[in-house]
Amino acid sequence: MSEVLRVAVAGLGNVGAETVRLLAGQKDLLALRCGRPIVVTAVSARDASRDRGISLDGITWFDDPVALARDADADVVLELIGGSEGVAKDVCEAAIAAGRHVVTANKALIAVHGAALGGAAEAAGVTLAYESAVAGGIPIVKALREGLAANQVTRLQGILNGTCNYILTTMRETGRDFDDVLAEAQELGFAEADPSFDIDGVDAAHKLAILTSVAFGCAIDFDAVHVEGIRHIAASDIAYATELGYRIKLLGIAEMTDEGIQQRVHPVMVPIGAPIAGVEGVFNAVVAEGDYVGTTMFEGRGAGGGPTASAVVADIIDIARGQMMPVFGVPVAAQKPMRVHPLEDRTGLYFVRFMVHDKPGVFAEIAAALRDAEISIESAIQRGRAAGGVVALVVTTHEAREASMLKAIDAIAAFDSVTETPRMIRIEAF
Amino acid sequence: MSEVLRVAVAGLGNVGAETVRLLAGQKDLLALRCGRPIVVTAVSARDASRDRGISLDGITWFDDPVALARDADADVVLELIGGSEGVAKDVCEAAIAAGRHVVTANKALIAVHGAALGGAAEAAGVTLAYESAVAGGIPIVKALREGLAANQVTRLQGILNGTCNYILTTMRETGRDFDDVLAEAQELGFAEADPSFDIDGVDAAHKLAILTSVAFGCAIDFDAVHVEGIRHIAASDIAYATELGYRIKLLGIAEMTDEGIQQRVHPVMVPIGAPIAGVEGVFNAVVAEGDYVGTTMFEGRGAGGGPTASAVVADIIDIARGQMMPVFGVPVAAQKPMRVHPLEDRTGLYFVRFMVHDKPGVFAEIAAALRDAEISIESAIQRGRAAGGVVALVVTTHEAREASMLKAIDAIAAFDSVTETPRMIRIEAF
Repeated sequence: MSEVLRVAVAGLGNVGAETVRLLAGQKDLLALRCGRPIVVTAVSARDASRDRGISLDGITWFDDPVALARDADADVVLELIGGSEGVAKDVCEAAIAAGRHVVTANKALIAVHGAALGGAAEAAGVTLAYESAVAGGIPIVKALREGLAANQVTRLQGILNGTCNYILTTMRETGRDFDDVLAEAQELGFAEADPSFDIDGVDAAHKLAILTSVAFGCAIDFDAVHVEGIRHIAASDIAYATELGYRIKLLGIAEMTDEGIQQRVHPVMVPIGAPIAGVEGVFNAVVAEGDYVGTTMFEGRGAGGGPTASAVVADIIDIARGQMMPVFGVPVAAQKPMRVHPLEDRTGLYFVRFMVHDKPGVFAEIAAALRDAEISIESAIQRGRAAGGVVALVVTTHEAREASMLKAIDAIAAFDSVTETPRMIRIEAF
Repeated sequence: MSEVLRVAVAGLGNVGAETVRLLAGQKDLLALRCGRPIVVTAVSARDASRDRGISLDGITWFDDPVALARDADADVVLELIGGSEGVAKDVCEAAIAAGRHVVTANKALIAVHGAALGGAAEAAGVTLAYESAVAGGIPIVKALREGLAANQVTRLQGILNGTCNYILTTMRETGRDFDDVLAEAQELGFAEADPSFDIDGVDAAHKLAILTSVAFGCAIDFDAVHVEGIRHIAASDIAYATELGYRIKLLGIAEMTDEGIQQRVHPVMVPIGAPIAGVEGVFNAVVAEGDYVGTTMFEGRGAGGGPTASAVVADIIDIARGQMMPVFGVPVAAQKPMRVHPLEDRTGLYFVRFMVHDKPGVFAEIAAALRDAEISIESAIQRGRAAGGVVALVVTTHEAREASMLKAIDAIAAFDSVTETPRMIRIEAF
């Protein structure tokens, strides 16, 4: 197996350019580790004239990435374009149809079309690899599919979006508000001009849906992920969390229960002493619990050209070494269907912040509504007075059912004394 | 590839028995993930009559593990006996000579004889796998050899011995002395009756030597590891560390420098905010820095039947799936020799505790000796008085050379005012 592995690259944005740079810069190291050289033979991007700081000498240029996927002199096609539909999907389908291996960093594509693409790849006898689609440089797909494959995974929890973690970390460190910190993150390049995919939890949900499939051996079901983002987290929520001994993190959580699999992305209060609470800034982390291995945690940079290129090339190395296995750890045809355990069945602790008129009887009224829903109050904080004005009333609960909480909060939201939508944050034990 | 993978197990201690239990309990899951069943066909242990809580029905018993390795009806031999010499080595050699794959949890054997055994395995076209030899259930060998293989690793730092981490954590939490906590750890089964391999750093050094080889592509050189243990850590050192903003951890550190590779195991003061500082109790963790991926951390249980069996079976799964690669990531014949960068060249911060007679002029004398060695004092603590008695004088330094530190400490140790061997702990930046 000493012949050259030929790689065609569709998309020369930050990740694509960094991947080409890595393959050139680590050429000798990679040849030694793979037992054969890896050579980029073709590339495709929108603008042929742009200077990306990399040499494209001797590399065939394609204006059309689908033509590259179909016609390039290549064993492997890298899809680094992005987006769940359109050209990215066409590139992957064309490459598989042409009998070429595919490596992609595209979480949306895998989350939405992974089963179809994976099935096509398995039928064609080629690899569809996507390590870089989840948690950047952290080799978490490999860890779940191989390193922990002796285990029945029981629970996954991950900080899967660096933008949200950066914003939440900065809010805590500075006491500033969400909008203010988001604007700064956009200036610094840590958040997109249109940040909704990140801050509304969609990006994390894409990644969670992929990890769930690999960990539990079931078909990807992105639509079954309950998704909430961080737009409504106020500076005061973060201050309350600190006071109560928690950090607020946007987590992706997948759990196997007797009733099925529960997948959810939402802000969580995590005890300050939990390892994942210490994962700050743009870092990502995944905690995986297995029946034999116990609790493991994997941490690293979740985005950026270097870490993502590291994961893209790890997938190429597997291919160069002839490592083949089912796309999601078990053959797509043998995956179990996803039996969805709805979030309404969650039992756990809750934090709720009510904004209320500061007048006698308001707390009694809210406490009664919670009691009527069989929710037991663990602590209540009302600080400061604003006679006639609005104050925050914060409640944490003992174990309660999600469905009961939602019903009680809805009822309370309709009270005259309540001035805006109550904000609920789930508390998770670790 | 649907034929059965036949496994012979040499050694039915805690790990061996748990591995047999796992292979039976997860039979269907493993068959699905591997595309073929995994079956234990033969076992060998000292005592055939002992009840291990596992069924050995239909499994061939061998009194002689070497005979098992040579003659059993098996594709894979598990060496779970332990020890760098003797029967464990004989089992591995016999299995390789018979053309069987070998999976071992034996860190001492790989650290001392890994190059010879790995070369023999590669020549015979079989796998020698040892994920379980390092950091228990954490799939760190796979992470370095595959997941991060696109990177030139520049530095590794690991908490590689759970016994030491448990002792240091408990000393900090309780304020108790080393001997006291060690005795308790022995009662609880967290430390061996003869604890020297653990507490003197030898076990961590075995693991570090293995990781260094995989990460840097050089031949294993266990003898080149500088090794210090934790016997001399006093309760007061831990209290000073806390006061100065550090945790004391026994770390294994491997660094690539311009002069070569430096491997060392010794107690380290780590800033409290560093992720590895939060890894407590029996947990292990490895921080790996790569030129593209940046900093990554992997954390989990470093010992115990379940986690170790998880890693043993991960290696078996790789074999069942037909995943083959060089034993240390690059072929043994292509490994670079280890160019040793001696610890004397380290430049860094130091903590030193001097026990001195409490009388005028002692601090001046010590400060002068440090100045003469061109060592600059960052802080000095002397608390409490014991007129005519002995007190601790604690010094932390600015950047200093190891060789200068050792020379200065040697000189100061000879002072009449100094009553016992000064204790030096290196401080590492993270």
